[in-house]
Amino acid sequence: MCLSSLDSCGDGPESATSKCTQCLAPCYKLLEIKELESCFEYKEIASAPSGPRNDALMKSHTQYLYFNTHNKQEFINITPQVEEAVKKSQVREGLCLVNAMHITSSCFINDNESGLHKDFSIWLEKLAPYGKDKYNHNLTGEDNADAHLKRTIMGREVVAAITNGKLDFGPWEQIFYGEFDGQRKKRVLVKIIGE
Amino acid sequence: MCLSSLDSCGDGPESATSKCTQCLAPCYKLLEIKELESCFEYKEIASAPSGPRNDALMKSHTQYLYFNTHNKQEFINITPQVEEAVKKSQVREGLCLVNAMHITSSCFINDNESGLHKDFSIWLEKLAPYGKDKYNHNLTGEDNADAHLKRTIMGREVVAAITNGKLDFGPWEQIFYGEFDGQRKKRVLVKIIGE
Amino acid sequence: MCLSSLDSCGDGPESATSKCTQCLAPCYKLLEIKELESCFEYKEIASAPSGPRNDALMKSHTQYLYFNTHNKQEFINITPQVEEAVKKSQVREGLCLVNAMHITSSCFINDNESGLHKDFSIWLEKLAPYGKDKYNHNLTGEDNADAHLKRTIMGREVVAAITNGKLDFGPWEQIFYGEFDGQRKKRVLVKIIGE
Repeated sequence: MCLSSLDSCGDGPESATSKCTQCLAPCYKLLEIKELESCFEYKEIASAPSGPRNDALMKSHTQYLYFNTHNKQEFINITPQVEEAVKKSQVREGLCLVNAMHITSSCFINDNESGLHKDFSIWLEKLAPYGKDKYNHNLTGEDNADAHLKRTIMGREVVAAITNGKLDFGPWEQIFYGEFDGQRKKRVLVKIIGE
Repeated sequence: MCLSSLDSCGDGPESATSKCTQCLAPCYKLLEIKELESCFEYKEIASAPSGPRNDALMKSHTQYLYFNTHNKQEFINITPQVEEAVKKSQVREGLCLVNAMHITSSCFINDNESGLHKDFSIWLEKLAPYGKDKYNHNLTGEDNADAHLKRTIMGREVVAAITNGKLDFGPWEQIFYGEFDGQRKKRVLVKIIGE
Repeated sequence: MCLSSLDSCGDGPESATSKCTQCLAPCYKLLEIKELESCFEYKEIASAPSGPRNDALMKSHTQYLYFNTHNKQEFINITPQVEEAVKKSQVREGLCLVNAMHITSSCFINDNESGLHKDFSIWLEKLAPYGKDKYNHNLTGEDNADAHLKRTIMGREVVAAITNGKLDFGPWEQIFYGEFDGQRKKRVLVKIIGE
């Protein structure tokens, strides 16, 4: 696939039949890496500028997502909810902030693969193990100090670009809510600004 | 508290007497989690869209915060300074970037609890211990390689939403400057854009 | 150097002769910390507000950077490419998002010092060691689970401020692309919005 068809690579089923306008290859999300290599117009460090867009008025959009997490630790794919918020915002070019509103949970971008999520859990437990008696914070009566540390590793927020009215993501990027002290009601904020 | 009163939950003393317009409960920042559960209109994954805002002109605001840190490691709550910058910006809907301008310090969001801050220090020392002879970077004459690693764990920057002219934060979110190679003059940048 | 000359501290060779308009000291990037202390108008927690900018129309700019990474792990300084994108965007005041479009690589800000980069590699290998048989994710046939974890530590994205048409950086801040599963074609997204 060539650069010229990047814009036609959407997430919906229609992209399955998208063709590159130059090389007629299907949308790059459907291609194996090897095919990509023979097709993409890569350069060592090149750039594919869109050119600045004309001056425009600004839009903004605010949306809260609510969760009932059933387990202490959980990873929830919230990409569809964020995509819906982007659509509602009517923003064509802009930025989309997605952040946990709690300090023991996280929003992050990674692979939608359950094995990897298990790896994240095991790894975080090694780097920041649970322990009622292990942390000063737990002297306050809490037992979630480890959840504060785990969320620090995973990050509080994601900032994603919106291009042509859609999340401008690589083929495997998905947004997750990571819960580390769950079984409670939780909130995520989606804030979109742009034109 | 119901969704309809979210907007009235400010940070000032006046919010102590704010009531939900639907359920007449006080501002949710004053409620225990249990009370919240019986009152909040939570759904499994629901959303409370504000709807897109009308087109508007853009504002921006730049502010530098200066610190004299007295210790090598220090956590400074800079939420009041950022709130003041948001007020000065006159932005009602937008994004607020807060970043360390140094590469051995951090801006992050977490709990304003001194025990937790002690836990952060102990934990970071375990993950990235100080050591003049432990790092290649210190061959340059520095002794702060560990501070570069510590700041990497904690993050360089925070991006926060501004809604209705205020930082759109969960009940416990506070912004901290984390210093890992202090006893020097340091700078933080606050950049606000919006409408 | 006094606050009034901050704007004249550029990155080019011309800044070597920039003088503060108040104290006539050269650009602060050339000064030792000690000289700074005697000159900078520091306060305990002070602020140097620019005041809100007048209402303006919004611009946006999108640019993709392409890489051919030759090694499994690599750190590439992409500051010049991002600076070029900022220039092309014609944005004077705004935000610049720089993110990896892959989930085994990172964009981050730190020091342009090769010893430190070696330290990053060694440290990440300790925190998230490579191992075909060590991770559930690798049961899918991949061997890059460790790269997903390494990128999580380093972060997916950078959000930088644009002030007066330039990246508003501290003296040592540089943007890097961190590759943890390379020898493949990779993409970075630069998204700029502002006025």
